[in-house]
Amino acid sequence: MMQQPAIALGLRIRLLAEGPDVSAAQVVPDHVVGDHTDLDTLRQVVADAPVVTFDHEHVPPEHLRALESEGHACRPGPHALLYAQDKAAMRERLGALGAPCPRNAPIASLADLEAFGYPAVLKTTRGGYDGKGVWVVRSAADADEAFAADRPLLAEELVDFRRELSALVARAPSGEVRSYPVVESRQVGGVCAEVVAPAPDLDPALAASARELAERIATELDVTGILAVELFETVDGSLLVNELAMRPHNTGHWSIDGAETSQFENHLRAVLDLPLGGTLPRAPWTVMVNVLGGAVEDLEAQRAVVLAAEPDVKVHLYGKSVKAGRKVGHVTAYGDELDDVLARARRAAGLFTTGS
Amino acid sequence: MMQQPAIALGLRIRLLAEGPDVSAAQVVPDHVVGDHTDLDTLRQVVADAPVVTFDHEHVPPEHLRALESEGHACRPGPHALLYAQDKAAMRERLGALGAPCPRNAPIASLADLEAFGYPAVLKTTRGGYDGKGVWVVRSAADADEAFAADRPLLAEELVDFRRELSALVARAPSGEVRSYPVVESRQVGGVCAEVVAPAPDLDPALAASARELAERIATELDVTGILAVELFETVDGSLLVNELAMRPHNTGHWSIDGAETSQFENHLRAVLDLPLGGTLPRAPWTVMVNVLGGAVEDLEAQRAVVLAAEPDVKVHLYGKSVKAGRKVGHVTAYGDELDDVLARARRAAGLFTTGS
Repeated sequence: MMQQPAIALGLRIRLLAEGPDVSAAQVVPDHVVGDHTDLDTLRQVVADAPVVTFDHEHVPPEHLRALESEGHACRPGPHALLYAQDKAAMRERLGALGAPCPRNAPIASLADLEAFGYPAVLKTTRGGYDGKGVWVVRSAADADEAFAADRPLLAEELVDFRRELSALVARAPSGEVRSYPVVESRQVGGVCAEVVAPAPDLDPALAASARELAERIATELDVTGILAVELFETVDGSLLVNELAMRPHNTGHWSIDGAETSQFENHLRAVLDLPLGGTLPRAPWTVMVNVLGGAVEDLEAQRAVVLAAEPDVKVHLYGKSVKAGRKVGHVTAYGDELDDVLARARRAAGLFTTGS
Repeated sequence: MMQQPAIALGLRIRLLAEGPDVSAAQVVPDHVVGDHTDLDTLRQVVADAPVVTFDHEHVPPEHLRALESEGHACRPGPHALLYAQDKAAMRERLGALGAPCPRNAPIASLADLEAFGYPAVLKTTRGGYDGKGVWVVRSAADADEAFAADRPLLAEELVDFRRELSALVARAPSGEVRSYPVVESRQVGGVCAEVVAPAPDLDPALAASARELAERIATELDVTGILAVELFETVDGSLLVNELAMRPHNTGHWSIDGAETSQFENHLRAVLDLPLGGTLPRAPWTVMVNVLGGAVEDLEAQRAVVLAAEPDVKVHLYGKSVKAGRKVGHVTAYGDELDDVLARARRAAGLFTTGS
């Protein structure tokens, strides 16, 4: 999705792709197929590129530090990316900043967990996503799987939240920061299912707090590019930081069709230290619904059915093979009436997933 | 520019590029470099593609007929494309349809021209564009260059027009037609300089006539994909057809950032016989200004200057080297106040062209 604004801006991307058929390799002519955990491969790809950036957080920090020491500009840099890679480091740093977080503690043993108390959310500090590496534990028995993973763990309080919000910001090395409207992110089974922009009925003071918090985190952590701050809105109407992501994020996909400047364009502008673009919404309501792999195997054939049913919904297919529950695309609708916009986006996504 | 919606829709383009460095080859991984007037090259490129389409009108019609006879779907087909390739055929056919045209006649000799009368606009029937192959003649002497070209000529009355309009439609093989708002196209030296969408102060009845005329031409000529009908609004408030183009057109570039569905997306949807997307504008006013090659040699370096001056103008650079007067990109602004929108777009384009 970064390639689309790159084309418009006349930017040339050189891509390191995990395989010859991955989504990005299908649309970026200048690509190398290789392993992002191999330093020599990274060196080959970055070569004469003025800037190195990412669409995931899995490049080892020591490799990024090596690239930096060899004169490459990594944006975000490893000193910032650490806080999106390691949840324990993130909690410690956010705590030091006074950012509101769920009560949390590193867990090395069952005794630590018993001391933390139940219920708790146990997370591997690294590598978890979309509900993987996360366990809700209400007793010692619930923690067996988490301990069996034999990886560093963090316990967090099980937050009694009203809903999940996301505050997205772009930040350039110049220090310029632009924040997007705060959105509501609705999860099913730990996976983002749909996003409503802006978050409906959000107290304006709370929305302003969320944006200020995300801008402050971006600045304090020296993030460059997009930062997504996933938040809980608690039942008592306060905010707690859930997760950080330092890349264009699923909760910002609405911006492609719904904002003055998409998160992908602002990510590119930010990492290249270009002035950032406007983040205002272009319609009163924009809804993004993920297309998850389901009963429909041939998404390309189904595209005609979806466009016939919903000609004004914007379709984004990722060129991925269908597997149950896999994110294979998304759809976006926008308009004046939230109920209508939500219904159109859900209908289009449903046609791609279940076929009806 | 077609690659951007192709990525979103999950479509794969195989491109025949004139050279290894042309704009499209920079962004379409699956491309062949070759000559579009060579039938064997065309055969190699179309191969197993379900549909063949174009971003110019210069593929010889006999080659397209050969591809069709071999089972390839050419959209638009050669029977339609003829009327965008040959101005004499276009005038004859539009005349037969009763579409309003400037008075015109084929010219084989000076005697024909004298009989037609002065002033006249002499045009080569094939191959002219952006003012090339067009001569305004007020006497026999003015026609020397046109006759020296030794190519079939058409004379047209020199129209006393108020302004130029463009009516853009998308049409699918299903027969579905969607028309865009009629825009005003402002030319400098025979080259489109800027487009205002919708055309300011256009009589709603005349706007409706223009859209109906374009829809009727698309249907009668069996056009598939985008048809641009360039029109004169005469000083007495009527419409005359100036030119036809059967491809995404410069007067439709505003739609990328300004309409629900861009002309490039609707062209792809049309030629694949997918349902078409909405054509409503997303803002009260959208202005597109072409970036012409000028004093600025390094457009990529100038991009930072332009974005700093106009962060909300959408920049489109084509990856072309700068030559004086060459279209190397465009910029688009949108908003509620035409004066402001126009000023912002012109300022951004000016910074790319003159540097100030």
